Amino acid sequence: MNLPLYVSKPLLPDLETLVPQLKEIWASGIVTNNGPLHQKFENALEQYLGTPCAMAFNNGTIALLVALKMMDLEIGSEVITTPLTFAATAHSIAWNGLVPVFADVEPQSLTLDPKAVERAISPRTSAILAVHVYGNVCDVVGLQDIADKHGLRLIYDAAHVFGATIDDRPIGLFGDVSVFSFHATKLFNSLEGGAITSRLVSDKEKIYSLRNFGIKNEEEVVDIGINGKMNEFQAAVGLLNLPLVAEERSKRAQLRDRYNYSLRDLPGVRLPVTQKNVFNSEQYYHLVIDHREFGSSRDEIYDGLKESNIFARKYFHPICTDFAPYKNYKIHTTHESPYVNEVKSQVLCLPFHSGVKDEHIEAIERQFRRSLRAS
Amino acid sequence: MNLPLYVSKPLLPDLETLVPQLKEIWASGIVTNNGPLHQKFENALEQYLGTPCAMAFNNGTIALLVALKMMDLEIGSEVITTPLTFAATAHSIAWNGLVPVFADVEPQSLTLDPKAVERAISPRTSAILAVHVYGNVCDVVGLQDIADKHGLRLIYDAAHVFGATIDDRPIGLFGDVSVFSFHATKLFNSLEGGAITSRLVSDKEKIYSLRNFGIKNEEEVVDIGINGKMNEFQAAVGLLNLPLVAEERSKRAQLRDRYNYSLRDLPGVRLPVTQKNVFNSEQYYHLVIDHREFGSSRDEIYDGLKESNIFARKYFHPICTDFAPYKNYKIHTTHESPYVNEVKSQVLCLPFHSGVKDEHIEAIERQFRRSLRAS
Repeated sequence: MNLPLYVSKPLLPDLETLVPQLKEIWASGIVTNNGPLHQKFENALEQYLGTPCAMAFNNGTIALLVALKMMDLEIGSEVITTPLTFAATAHSIAWNGLVPVFADVEPQSLTLDPKAVERAISPRTSAILAVHVYGNVCDVVGLQDIADKHGLRLIYDAAHVFGATIDDRPIGLFGDVSVFSFHATKLFNSLEGGAITSRLVSDKEKIYSLRNFGIKNEEEVVDIGINGKMNEFQAAVGLLNLPLVAEERSKRAQLRDRYNYSLRDLPGVRLPVTQKNVFNSEQYYHLVIDHREFGSSRDEIYDGLKESNIFARKYFHPICTDFAPYKNYKIHTTHESPYVNEVKSQVLCLPFHSGVKDEHIEAIERQFRRSLRAS
Repeated sequence: MNLPLYVSKPLLPDLETLVPQLKEIWASGIVTNNGPLHQKFENALEQYLGTPCAMAFNNGTIALLVALKMMDLEIGSEVITTPLTFAATAHSIAWNGLVPVFADVEPQSLTLDPKAVERAISPRTSAILAVHVYGNVCDVVGLQDIADKHGLRLIYDAAHVFGATIDDRPIGLFGDVSVFSFHATKLFNSLEGGAITSRLVSDKEKIYSLRNFGIKNEEEVVDIGINGKMNEFQAAVGLLNLPLVAEERSKRAQLRDRYNYSLRDLPGVRLPVTQKNVFNSEQYYHLVIDHREFGSSRDEIYDGLKESNIFARKYFHPICTDFAPYKNYKIHTTHESPYVNEVKSQVLCLPFHSGVKDEHIEAIERQFRRSLRAS
């Protein structure tokens, strides 16, 4: 059994297929700045994601900064988001001089609860930054309704849903813009990387500008931009990884079925939901473990697996409202107390990639059953 | 004669030397997140730059954002800088919620004039962001005096002075921190890339945190950080390029002498200054062309060269105070009118890398002499 085993393992093309791409880079001498591979990669990305606008970035966080900046939100205004997300979501709001306001999540999908969002709205609210998590998609209809009703911008952090669709509609077409991450831990990666997608081709000009210092041409700088450029090496890896995603995804879908079958009868262990009419991105396999029913806690299982060199992740734990910078921030909710504060000590992501073998699944199952008996 | 000829040409290692590094990456499966090559690169960088702290970034602009953030300056406070710089300098001030305040440059070095800086100080001033330009270093003593006298933080944008020293003291040790760029256009590059250096090892912890989402450990997020991580491909290129810098630099030093000799007798053409006790980084070869004496303007020479497929750069033109976002910003000066507004239409950077051959130099000289006769 190959150990240690981690939650993710970066998808990489055969090195033999990369070398010819590198030779092209060496021949042209162009290593960055919207080079030929970068342009080819963006075209391929638009095809793959089914969005007329897909702009590549050096990483997803810089893409988030730019996505927020292009909305032209008033400095100091409030952006409603979920605390059950990676740090980058809240940080990009704060780094841009905006105020993150947290709202509770839906118990089933663990995504932002539209009813909680409504409670979080104040006269200073300017936008909603919703996050599709684990592969679960948000209530896109409910959130868009609220955004429309209150005149708010709606941005999706789509880091976990590469290639997903809802009713056959590509996930990158919802809201004003969506932001993807191509970090090594993602289903699709370009080492580091990210993208902003939009249903509007007309968004390209602004995104291009903000990504490249606001430079319009040799004589004009029109925006306060930064450097979000993806280099040609990243684009080369992206181009070669894109055709490999379908197979990796389908292996993960099989793995999901295997996990579901292995763990189906464990009391207090909630398996991932299946969302109707959603093509799942198979980003993470997450369980919700209620220790009152299961007997052992999420942390005990995590520790037990770790002893066997299997590294699950308490993802997301801590949640944003546990971080020092947002420590006293309220979580708006329709419940008596925020559901997210309960579930944060119950979620566990299991190793989820094509390198997970039957014997790994069996070892993980054994640990769950040991923890169950121990309780 | 190899044409077109550009101002810069990225230094790249032999592809044959890169492939074994890539094999290492493939074997480890670690493509980013402070991986083994990244760590090796940072150690090599500390050695090369002679700074006890050198932290690598995905690019120089993100490094600038982090350098400013680590100073903990009050939001809305003023940072004094030069308008004769690349857009990234002013933009990183503005993106961080600070206000750029512009001061004039010294006619000789074209770096920030300490006397102009003093005029720019207000009760809201929190820091100075000085820029070493073209390879010329700032008046580090004059600027530090002002910073000390007024209790201001002093940050250097050192994108143009990789490996420079003043009186044998490494350039990255001046001020509070220095920010380097390893963009493809720089003497040393890692495709895209950058670094923050400091004379304090104790700065590492904060920089590391801000570069990686403020994550302290699995249980704690302590800062509002972003993603400034350099990936392993960039680190591999950086490691292989570092030993090539000395030769590239010395070829450029010879090229400088050649240019100086070719253009020495042209009236109204000011050659680059030689700064005493400074080890020059040989980043750019810049001329200052006074059309009143020379007869033709900088733009006429630029256009003439362009017709021969030689692409000089009007660098920096436009200057920051010409950009739409800073259009009505004052330039503080001790002169009747800012010198920078005069020199911005006079500076011209010539092709400056080891690929520039004798015939190129001769073609460039011919263009200058044609422009001279035409006047």
